Parts: sequence; structure tokens; C-alpha cells
Amino acid sequence: MTAAQSNGTARVALDAMGGDFGPAVIVAGAIEACRALDVHVQLVGQRAPLEQELRRAGGAPAELEILDAPHVIEMAEKVSRATLKKRSSMLVGLERVRDGHADAFFSVGNTAACWTIAKLVLGTLEGVERPALAAVVPNRVSRTVLIDVGANAACNARNLEEFAVMGAVYSQAALRTPEPKVGLMSVGEEETKGSELTRDVLEVLKRSQLNFVGNVEGHDLFSGKVDVVVMDGFTGNVALKASETLAESILHLLREEIERSSILARLGAGLARHAFRAVKKRMDPAESGGAPLLGVNGCCVIGHGNSQAYAVRHGIRAAAEFWRSGVNQRIQAELRVLSARREATAGVE
Amino acid sequence: MTAAQSNGTARVALDAMGGDFGPAVIVAGAIEACRALDVHVQLVGQRAPLEQELRRAGGAPAELEILDAPHVIEMAEKVSRATLKKRSSMLVGLERVRDGHADAFFSVGNTAACWTIAKLVLGTLEGVERPALAAVVPNRVSRTVLIDVGANAACNARNLEEFAVMGAVYSQAALRTPEPKVGLMSVGEEETKGSELTRDVLEVLKRSQLNFVGNVEGHDLFSGKVDVVVMDGFTGNVALKASETLAESILHLLREEIERSSILARLGAGLARHAFRAVKKRMDPAESGGAPLLGVNGCCVIGHGNSQAYAVRHGIRAAAEFWRSGVNQRIQAELRVLSARREATAGVE
Repeated sequence: MTAAQSNGTARVALDAMGGDFGPAVIVAGAIEACRALDVHVQLVGQRAPLEQELRRAGGAPAELEILDAPHVIEMAEKVSRATLKKRSSMLVGLERVRDGHADAFFSVGNTAACWTIAKLVLGTLEGVERPALAAVVPNRVSRTVLIDVGANAACNARNLEEFAVMGAVYSQAALRTPEPKVGLMSVGEEETKGSELTRDVLEVLKRSQLNFVGNVEGHDLFSGKVDVVVMDGFTGNVALKASETLAESILHLLREEIERSSILARLGAGLARHAFRAVKKRMDPAESGGAPLLGVNGCCVIGHGNSQAYAVRHGIRAAAEFWRSGVNQRIQAELRVLSARREATAGVE
Repeated sequence: MTAAQSNGTARVALDAMGGDFGPAVIVAGAIEACRALDVHVQLVGQRAPLEQELRRAGGAPAELEILDAPHVIEMAEKVSRATLKKRSSMLVGLERVRDGHADAFFSVGNTAACWTIAKLVLGTLEGVERPALAAVVPNRVSRTVLIDVGANAACNARNLEEFAVMGAVYSQAALRTPEPKVGLMSVGEEETKGSELTRDVLEVLKRSQLNFVGNVEGHDLFSGKVDVVVMDGFTGNVALKASETLAESILHLLREEIERSSILARLGAGLARHAFRAVKKRMDPAESGGAPLLGVNGCCVIGHGNSQAYAVRHGIRAAAEFWRSGVNQRIQAELRVLSARREATAGVE
């Protein structure tokens, strides 16, 4: 891939069969994306229902084509060998990326199935032991990359070091953070705090070439103190899901309270609705477009199952930016440096 | 301790020297508690500044006395042997509980110091390998007990089984949940999901006599699906701190957005302010009073360092309820049953 390529139209393979609301919202999101962004969308899934949705939407824009994939992976499907063998929209879409017919893949389908198939089809980048799922969440000033949020429940220090490198590259290249500050999630800022794993990782990251600030705490997921928070996938998954539900709950509680208030208060809330909307939008996971799977040899972004058309459009944008920013080439280069340093250190010891 | 005792006035030893705002807010909270609740408060700390604060507040109510403790443990103090040897307000206050001169202890001081001293002074309940810190958080319908949220970064299956028992007893006895539903925190509801630890714990809890519903996810910290969420202290600490900051951030963002809105919108928000306040109050950690330390031989509740008088009053209430509800006696009884079952199982195997 040349640098010039990265500036052109992004060809995004889109899993048209995943998500909680079926192909209708995905097709709608794809059409919005084709209109608003410099992308070509390959809608991957069962041709007949997709053609029907396109007709219903008033026809397909020129930047959109359908690629047939006969099988569907259900949202609640437990990932088995059978899942992986199906000619599913995920498999076909990811093969497009592998074979160079698409630049990036986006799905709002079954997350576990998607990252398993992505690893199988795309393989890992050279030097990556474990790919990781990164979430991009709003903080008080900009956005924080949380890595890993679900792909790896059990990690070792080496894995977390790679997560740190990949997260920092993503923050810098895709989110344009000048010198991303990296923090290690622990239960206290002191170096002695944490688990055996975090104490090991702390030593490794202190010696790294990253802009590493040391241990951070749960508070710092949203404080903006760091741009990248590194943690094992169990902790990250719990923290991310807890946060998403809490944000929804608070806004839900507010709506409830307002509805049971006096007419005057309800009128007041109506007048202040722009403020509510602005906050809702800022907290909305749809804004980030989805979670990039880092460390696989290709660009793959996984969105929320409950995505509406708006979220699908943002996911397509995130997938295109992932490709355009050359994240994978930079990860590769950084990991070569890391590997050379590891060998040099091993030689000295 | 007799059942009759539990219905009387609770004698609460209060660490008067901890917290971010010094003795003034603690003294104010103690006076509020004495006026509103059936408690006798022992204000433990440096006599001179405490007497000054009491004079400033217009004198001490009859239900309040000062107990002198010459040393102070700083909020940021790293817990060392020297910390534990000091005649600090924590040590003196917890000795009052140990020696039967107080029924419960409450502190908004250095959390790590408090639970270390509590374990040393009070010892653990018979059959408890590891005490655990439990947080009580609001959910959509009532309150969820999260255990452990900070005391133990590395846990084994046996520890988590004990956490489950202690959390369920606390929910039932102190929060009056009829049959607390217990969930195990994992990264997916399927039994195969999670870490090696959670898969082990799942098997143990399935065989327990608890009302165990299986794995839950980050979403369920606030969904109200379960009344008790069991997890290792690393995961719990991260999830709790992340949630607290997020709740603050959302309300902060809303205020910011409203302030930069039009005069009409600001007026509107003013009209709806009761709704805001109701939600803020519901999400406020001060409402729960603090985190009970379960598994030690005495009642100890730890509150937020940033507690104001209102939070201190609620902490004193929580400490008194912890004692009144006989949580520790019930934990003891449940652990005897657990131990008998373990022995019976070991005999069979």
C-alpha cells in the first residue's frame, strides 16, 4: 500500500446482516455514508433482502454495491467451528479486505464472531502476539482510547506492552493526538499498587519509548489525564460496559424525573433541550463509530449491536479513517523497533 | 452481643481526622447525625482542634464526646509499619470497637490505611480468609452491592465464594432485599466466557445455596438485574471509580452546556432544576453512606475522602445500620454452613 492510496476513496466492506435491527438500518447508514463521505461501500449479505431494502430506500447510490454472502451469523450465536466455516457476511467481507478488494471492514454484528473471523482471515500483523479491541470514549477534553476492551481476558506483560504501542499509534494516527499520553490501569497511582501483572507491565512500560505516565485509576477513563489506557480485556470490557449503561441510565433517570415534574418544569426542560441533546450526543457510543480491532493484518472496526443508521454511518467513517491514517503500517514499524529493543536487551542480560 | 442490643442507640466511633476537608465537615456531619439519628458519636482525633470546631458549631450535643488520638494518618500517606503503629484516630477508633466500647466505626480517611488497620485491630470473622470492601450503588430500581471493590487485587475461587456470601448477607440484612440475586461479573453471560478464575467461581457458586443467577456483565452493575455483583477487587475498583467519575462528568457537562445556552434555555433549566437535583442525589455516592468492610470482626464503614457533612451523616447512619442489622453474626452463621458443606464435599470426594 502506498501513501497516495490512503488519500483516495476508501472502499469499505460493510456487514449488512449483523446488528439488532436487521439490514434496514444498515442499508440506510450505508446510503448516508455514500452521500456524506469519500467512500465506496460494499454491502455484504443476502442479496434478495438487501436489494429490497435498497429499493425501499429509493435505489442505490453509485458508490454502493451488493456482494452476496448466503449465511448469517446470529447476534447471540455461540462461536463454534460451524460459525467460522459459514460463507457469512463477516467471512466474505473480511476476505475482501484480505484480498485487497476492500480497504476496511465494518460490522455491528456478533462481536466475538467478528474478531475471531478477522483474526482467522486477516491474520495478525508481524510481531503481534494478540490483537486487541480498542474503544474510543469521550473524556472531558477530547477522546480516550481504551485497550483492550474484550478480546483477551487473560494477558501477560508482553501482551499489554503491545496493546500500549497499538493504542498509542491509533490515538496519534487516527485521532490526531500529537504525543499520546499512555497510562496503565491499576487500583492506585503508587507503583506498588495493583496486581502482579500490572506491576510487571509497569516496569516494562517505564523502559519503553512511549509517553508513559505510569499507573492510572478508574477515574481516569474519562478524566482526560491520559489519551490511552492500557488494561487486560476483562477489566476493560467490564469498565466499558458499566460506563455505557451508566451514561444511558443517568439520561434516562433525568427524562423520567422531568416527565413527572410540574408543567412549568417540563416546559423548562423543553427550553433546555439543546443542552441535553449536546450531552447525549457527546456520550453516545455511536459518535466514535466503533471499536477498531488492532493487531490484525487489515482494518476492521466493530460497532454496537444496537446501532441505528446514524451509528452505521459513523462506523463506516471510522473504518475509512482507520485505513487512511495508515495505523497498521505504523504499528508494524513500532513493533519492529520494540522487537529490536527486546533482542538488544536480551543480548545484554 | 444480644439481639436486644442491636435495637438500641448505636455507639459509632468516628474518625475525625480523615477526609479531604479536615475536621470541620466531620464535626458538622457528626452533629447532624446526633440530631437526626439514634446514635451516640465518639469523635476520635486530636482533642484541641476538635474542641475548637465544636465551639465554632455552637457546642456539642449530649450524644457526642471526644476521644483523644494524638496522631493523624494523611490521605496520601503510603501505608507502612510506621502508619500502623501510630496512635492514630483510626487505630484508637477501631480499638473502641474491638473492646466493645463502640458498636461501629466510620472513616472518610485513607482507605488503604483504614482497611489494613481494621484487619489488624478487629481480626477476621471465623472462617473468612479475606475481608472485602463492598460498595452500594444505585441501580434503576434499588441498590446493588458490588463486592470486592478494592481490598483484594488477586483472588481465588474460595475468596470470591466468601465475597458472594458476605455480599448477599449484607444486601438482605442491611438493605432489606428479600432474596438477594447474586451475579458473577464476567465478560459474557455464557458459562464458557470469562477468565480462568470466573469459570472456577461459576462452578462453585452454582453449587452454593445462594440465589445465584450466573454470569453478569458490566451493564448489570446498574441494570438492577442482580442485587449483588461478585468480582475480584481489581475489576471492582476500576469499575466503581470509572462509574463515579462518569456520573460526575455527565452532570458537569450538562451544567456547562446549559451555562453556554441562551437565556431562555438557562431559564428553562432553572425551572427543571428539581429534576436535576433528584438525579444528582440518586447518583451521589454520599447517599449510600460508604463502603462496608465485610469479613472483619466488627463493623467498619469507609466513606469517600471528598465527603461533606451530609455524606458524613449518611456514613454514620450506614455504620449504625451495619451494626443494627446483625450482618456479622449472619455472615458467621452462613460461613459455618459453607464450611460444613465444604467438609462434607471433601469427605465424599
